[in-house]
Formats: sequence, C-alpha cells, structure tokens
Amino acid sequence: MRKFDKGAAGTCQVDRVEVARWEQFSLGDRLPFKAMWYTVPPSASSPRDCHPEVELSIVVSGSAAVEASGQIVEVDHGSAFLLDSNEAHVVHNRSTEAPLVVFSAYWMPAPAAAG
Amino acid sequence: MRKFDKGAAGTCQVDRVEVARWEQFSLGDRLPFKAMWYTVPPSASSPRDCHPEVELSIVVSGSAAVEASGQIVEVDHGSAFLLDSNEAHVVHNRSTEAPLVVFSAYWMPAPAAAG
Repeated sequence: MRKFDKGAAGTCQVDRVEVARWEQFSLGDRLPFKAMWYTVPPSASSPRDCHPEVELSIVVSGSAAVEASGQIVEVDHGSAFLLDSNEAHVVHNRSTEAPLVVFSAYWMPAPAAAG
Repeated sequence: MRKFDKGAAGTCQVDRVEVARWEQFSLGDRLPFKAMWYTVPPSASSPRDCHPEVELSIVVSGSAAVEASGQIVEVDHGSAFLLDSNEAHVVHNRSTEAPLVVFSAYWMPAPAAAG
C-alpha cells in the first residue's frame, strides 16, 4: 500500500490555482490516468482550460461551480463531474471563506472503434 | 459536462459499509476504471477485501486507518492510498462521530510486458 499525502505534496501555482501534480510520485504507467489535486482560493476561479484529455473530478473540500458548455453547474463536496475531451471549462469557488479542493484524473480518450 | 451527485446515488449495504457503485451511471467504457463511493460509519470497519484490481482511493470526508500488508496507515481527509493487485485490506474509521467517505477507482493491472 502506498499513501499519497496531500499536505506534503509539492505544488505549483497556475494563475490563482495551486496545483499538485501526481507526476511527482513517479508512478510511471501504474495508473491508467494522470492525476492532480488543485485548490481554488475563496472567491477565485481557475483559468479557462481546454484539453484533449477526458477529466473526472471529485470535490474533496468546498463546493465547485463548474462552467462548461454554456452552463454553470454546482458540484458539492463529495460529488463529481466529468468533462469531455476538448470541453472548455472554468471552475469557480463562490465561497468567500472556504477553499475549494478538487482531485482530478485525466486521460486520453480511447480511439473510436474502426468502422 | 456530466455531474455525479453523491447525495442522489443509489447505494447498497456491504456489511456495515454503504457502497454507491458507479455502474449505475452507465458510463460503459468511457472511464479507464470502475468507481464507487463508500461510507464507513463511525467506529466501524470495512470487511476484509482482496481482489485482482489495483485500487486508488481518495479520502473525501473523515480519516481512514488503512490496514494492509501488516501495517496500519492513517490517511487523512484529502489524501489518497493505492492498493496493489491482490493486496488484502481493511479500512477502519476510528472516529466515534464522523463517517468516513472514500472515492475509489479500480482497474485490472496491465499485463507485464512480454520478455
């Protein structure tokens, strides 16, 4: 069993968001996805992001207002959201007090089956 | 974007553990893993489990005392733990008040590369 301690993980700053990428754990291809934690401070938002990887996110602390595909959806603590490949998104933390912490796994989608 | 609402998910009881398996979301092979939330009540433990799938778990609420491979490791809220294929494990909630909520992703390990 291996533990990944969020409090001890190295982070980098991306705009106002603190990002702890799991590449630091040198897992190679043991996971079928890449992973990170990210923290959005109170009253802040993530920069707009858009990437070919599908992304599954779990709200670990706080609550997320996820803006994607022309709508904003509230995702509370414990719940999850899945972003499609190339679906642009912004994650807002509307709390004025509590940080928003998210765990995300992301991976390239499987190629469509041959016709 | 698709939301998975933990509070609205269907659950089943496995011993004292409440399990919400993601098969209910009919994602087919959109994710490269299977997934679930599970909740261990205060002062309870999960039944001993052992399976060929590798399992990555994120502690969403509370704190986990994870027993595996002859040791018990504390994994706090927000942190994560990775169980190897066929590594037997028991997850204890030592809090007398707070439930322990975990999100787990699990998948069959890739076959070893041909020699």
